[in-house]
Amino acid sequence: MSNDNSSTKNIGLRNIEVADTKICAIEPDNGKLIYRGYDILDLAKNSTFEETAYLLLFGDLPSREQIENFNAKLIAKRYLPSSVVKSMTYRPISSSPMDVLQSTISMLADHDENINDDSKEANYERAINLIAKFPTVVAVWDRIRKNLPLVKPSEKLTHSANFLYMLTGEEPDKEFAKDFDICLVLHAEHSFNASTFAAREVASTRAHMYSSIAAAIGALSGELHGGANVKVMEALQEIGSVENVEKWVNARFDAGERIMGMGHAVYKTDDPRAKVLREMSKRLATKMNSPLYGITQKLEDVTKEEMKKRKGVEIFANVDLYSASVYHMMGIQLDLNTPIFALARIAGWAAHVIEEKFAEAQPKPMLYRPTAAYVGKYCGPLGCEYTSLQKRIQ
Amino acid sequence: MSNDNSSTKNIGLRNIEVADTKICAIEPDNGKLIYRGYDILDLAKNSTFEETAYLLLFGDLPSREQIENFNAKLIAKRYLPSSVVKSMTYRPISSSPMDVLQSTISMLADHDENINDDSKEANYERAINLIAKFPTVVAVWDRIRKNLPLVKPSEKLTHSANFLYMLTGEEPDKEFAKDFDICLVLHAEHSFNASTFAAREVASTRAHMYSSIAAAIGALSGELHGGANVKVMEALQEIGSVENVEKWVNARFDAGERIMGMGHAVYKTDDPRAKVLREMSKRLATKMNSPLYGITQKLEDVTKEEMKKRKGVEIFANVDLYSASVYHMMGIQLDLNTPIFALARIAGWAAHVIEEKFAEAQPKPMLYRPTAAYVGKYCGPLGCEYTSLQKRIQ
Repeated sequence: MSNDNSSTKNIGLRNIEVADTKICAIEPDNGKLIYRGYDILDLAKNSTFEETAYLLLFGDLPSREQIENFNAKLIAKRYLPSSVVKSMTYRPISSSPMDVLQSTISMLADHDENINDDSKEANYERAINLIAKFPTVVAVWDRIRKNLPLVKPSEKLTHSANFLYMLTGEEPDKEFAKDFDICLVLHAEHSFNASTFAAREVASTRAHMYSSIAAAIGALSGELHGGANVKVMEALQEIGSVENVEKWVNARFDAGERIMGMGHAVYKTDDPRAKVLREMSKRLATKMNSPLYGITQKLEDVTKEEMKKRKGVEIFANVDLYSASVYHMMGIQLDLNTPIFALARIAGWAAHVIEEKFAEAQPKPMLYRPTAAYVGKYCGPLGCEYTSLQKRIQ
Repeated sequence: MSNDNSSTKNIGLRNIEVADTKICAIEPDNGKLIYRGYDILDLAKNSTFEETAYLLLFGDLPSREQIENFNAKLIAKRYLPSSVVKSMTYRPISSSPMDVLQSTISMLADHDENINDDSKEANYERAINLIAKFPTVVAVWDRIRKNLPLVKPSEKLTHSANFLYMLTGEEPDKEFAKDFDICLVLHAEHSFNASTFAAREVASTRAHMYSSIAAAIGALSGELHGGANVKVMEALQEIGSVENVEKWVNARFDAGERIMGMGHAVYKTDDPRAKVLREMSKRLATKMNSPLYGITQKLEDVTKEEMKKRKGVEIFANVDLYSASVYHMMGIQLDLNTPIFALARIAGWAAHVIEEKFAEAQPKPMLYRPTAAYVGKYCGPLGCEYTSLQKRIQ
């Protein structure tokens, strides 16, 4: 127990290994992101969200029979219990979609008939249930708050296309749905980021998956995590044109503020997801004659230059920099960016909750219970003595 | 990046200092628990839950004016928005009180008119709002599921007495309410335990207090954390009499199972809270002629003996061992034990969220983002190569 003002050495737990994982590897120096052994660039090019979710959960790419079963379950579980939908209709329309998502996911525990079964099989079923229902919760809330009739989930469309259909009431065109699906693949998993760690922390107490995932949603809602691409989009709108970028960036640097979308806690080079999204942003901007790609690219270049000039360090684009313009050009309302991040990341979160509960590693994972250095008052060697209200200095 | 099966060194983050704190000190060796400089035994004897909550939030015992203002705010904020109550009425009556608490607290964000104001002042108001509303959420849900008419919060009763009043519909007698209040003081704070750490983890992303606290509720619901005294009570009921204790404990040891309520991640001697609760359990059992104190005491003794005999180590009672019998003798339904833990701990959680967001420590706290050792597959030096479904071995 120290009472001096020494600060802890493990601020933010950076570089502290807290567990073994078989789910995801990040190679900070050469900018690789690996899901269960497969490079994210390979998966983004060739796989689908459903297949990626299967891979993350079960550890291998599925056979035809396995993916057909998996898809059938996902489709069957797209529906929400009617009482859950009803509870959403009582919320103020100003409610944040992330708050609605957190409380509604937590509420789904009520409707899990096997909630007291914490076996691995029951957790897999729960994972599939959550992956299936996330898009419905997000779409249903968006329709409710806009006073639009709800759209029943399709039983024919893919996971991504069905979400866009439930959101807009129209079947999306194939290219649009495919781009959106790639975004979900890219956002599905990222090792021990803050939200995944929150899910594992809660699961480590043996709490059930719904409450663990609700914690992850809370963490994702923060602007330093899933809220970052919202901040990027607000910046792009504030900047308005390529010509304004330099002045805007310099003003931020002068004020000692950070540029959202640039820099990452782990990568020391380009975030591989940024590469895919940069290309996608460029393609969409050309097609739609949008200035957003140009502004973003200039923002990236100027930030890199200024960072090098002013602080002598290299900084790189992260996943949020180009996802902002991509989602905007896809016509997605700004405050749905983070919920869409969540409906991709649920695949990774669920895989991590299962790993936390059933890891074969020795020593076994145990409840996360760190310590802290007490730097508060003591009022002398025997501590502070309670004084009655009458005797306190008023 | 290592690909061998080496396990991480920081399992459960035990003994890893993750932050500086001014809120709470635990002295593992001499069994002291200190809230803001004050010994928990002093506070349990002399203070009240309201005053303790004030101390935890603001760092000092209040003056008369300060506690009067604080109490007035707590009383004014006891009411729930009617739409929140309505949404509870749509839930299946089998829903777990902890699940209801988590989702309902998350939902309260909808009704915070200043939700986008993340100033320290706004967070203090939010903390008071949550401390005030936790008992109402727990009591309202218990009445709804039992199909009993709801009881409007009293504007005259103390925090503890008002909760018992809302729960039962009757004003509790003074001695009962005082004992219950001591339980809340004892459970109000405990440094970086799993639920508090979950709240700080979520707050570190700059998410708001409601979603941070919802994460903490999730962590508390786990049987290794807030669910532990439920497990103790189930054990006491299974044992049934003092005569059966020895056989029961030996059977657990033989099966390699742990005895809930015994042992703690931090204390290396008696948990100071157990001392107070042991006395309270004894007093209540004498008054009510209940065998529960005797069974619990025997359970403690036999577990200590067997632990020493079989493993050569000392083990001590923790807070959960005697709170189980205390709550049972108070007539509290078993599945409300953990929600009652939550309505005490919200004081500590809220203080920690504020500390996480506004700590003056240098370096400043940053988003908790640990790493993990990848021990999964690679399929060779270049990683696994994606194969199309057609080419996969079926």
